[in-house]
Amino acid sequence: MIYELWYWNGIPGRGEFVRLALEAAGIAYRDCAREGDGDSRRLIDDMLSDRACPPFAPPYLIADGMTISQTANILLFLGEKHGLAPSDTAGRLWVNQLQLTIADMVVEAHDVHHPIASGMYYEEQKVEALRRAQDFRQARLPKYLAYFEKVLSHYDGWLTSSARWSYADLSLYLLMDGLLFAFPKRMAAIMHSYPLLAGLHQRVADLPELQDYFASDRRLPFGDGMFRHYPELDGR
Amino acid sequence: MIYELWYWNGIPGRGEFVRLALEAAGIAYRDCAREGDGDSRRLIDDMLSDRACPPFAPPYLIADGMTISQTANILLFLGEKHGLAPSDTAGRLWVNQLQLTIADMVVEAHDVHHPIASGMYYEEQKVEALRRAQDFRQARLPKYLAYFEKVLSHYDGWLTSSARWSYADLSLYLLMDGLLFAFPKRMAAIMHSYPLLAGLHQRVADLPELQDYFASDRRLPFGDGMFRHYPELDGR
Repeated sequence: MIYELWYWNGIPGRGEFVRLALEAAGIAYRDCAREGDGDSRRLIDDMLSDRACPPFAPPYLIADGMTISQTANILLFLGEKHGLAPSDTAGRLWVNQLQLTIADMVVEAHDVHHPIASGMYYEEQKVEALRRAQDFRQARLPKYLAYFEKVLSHYDGWLTSSARWSYADLSLYLLMDGLLFAFPKRMAAIMHSYPLLAGLHQRVADLPELQDYFASDRRLPFGDGMFRHYPELDGR
Repeated sequence: MIYELWYWNGIPGRGEFVRLALEAAGIAYRDCAREGDGDSRRLIDDMLSDRACPPFAPPYLIADGMTISQTANILLFLGEKHGLAPSDTAGRLWVNQLQLTIADMVVEAHDVHHPIASGMYYEEQKVEALRRAQDFRQARLPKYLAYFEKVLSHYDGWLTSSARWSYADLSLYLLMDGLLFAFPKRMAAIMHSYPLLAGLHQRVADLPELQDYFASDRRLPFGDGMFRHYPELDGR
């Protein structure tokens, strides 16, 4: 059975962490919310249908008779079933930990432009966003990047001792990509301190197994999702 | 070997999700950062020590030669090893999904009083907190509670079809407890809509396996942690 991915149409969003893993592993899937006219009503109807294991929010993956939600949880499933993470307990938990830390940073990057309410427009919370952005650029961004750089210093190119990428490597690539899109000035000013992270970003960008996807219209550009480029929130 | 838990001394915080699971399961552990004079310097020194799998932040658990961090990841480990969640794939992923959704709500409850920067004092972001609190009380709080209530309607007392609690049940209890502490007026106004959640909260509070812990000084009261009671952020 082909896996069914459900995520908001129109933005890469958190669905993209799942897409990257499915695409890099060559796993067949349907991107259900983007089929037909791509109207968001279909996703909402499906999400609210009666299930014993309902998702709280997209993305979710229908696979092997299960409805699996929460990005890190979907990736845990894919990692275990398709060998996209080490299979021993220590390696499996390590990759899950990295994924959860990446997810924490994604929330913080999102809340830079939505510090008050995810249900309001950016323009309604712009004053607060300007203030949160300053702390994010100065304190949080370097703290997270330094952490991942330190992690990479223990290994040889990827986030584990494996010779192959794990799903966390793909996710860290997407996180870096989003930060480069949203905060180009700040990233340009500090990336010289994180050469191993820059290397990982490039290594995933060059993965042969992702080139078809990157060139396809299955891949959506950044826009009004988690990572947004508002010039007033960026700065050296 | 006795497990070693590391978490900030003085507040229950995210460490409490792990403590509840360890205590309810009767697993021996040391609460390392609370030993001796309990100075936070020891935790910081240990956390920054050179490890191939370093934690980004507490809590972390040293167990079976691993350093396991991220609350949901620690609980995934404990759940698998000590039978604190269903052992089949669907049940294991379901409990992990619930835990991650609980974790999302914890971040939002924390950010009510810290909407701008976790490294600043509440008093420095009080104006923004008042605004975020309004949205949290009106939109986010009912949304999450309604979700968990709906989940519970599919089962018989706990969050899974098991006859016994899982670690997510313990965590949902702690989340409810924190919300009742932080937002007593708002919770009093809306809890009549969530009778199954109220039942779960009481059921965990009454668990025989937790009574010794609840009566001990190992359990810390809420204070200046994730859940804080600022009367100005509460309201019907």
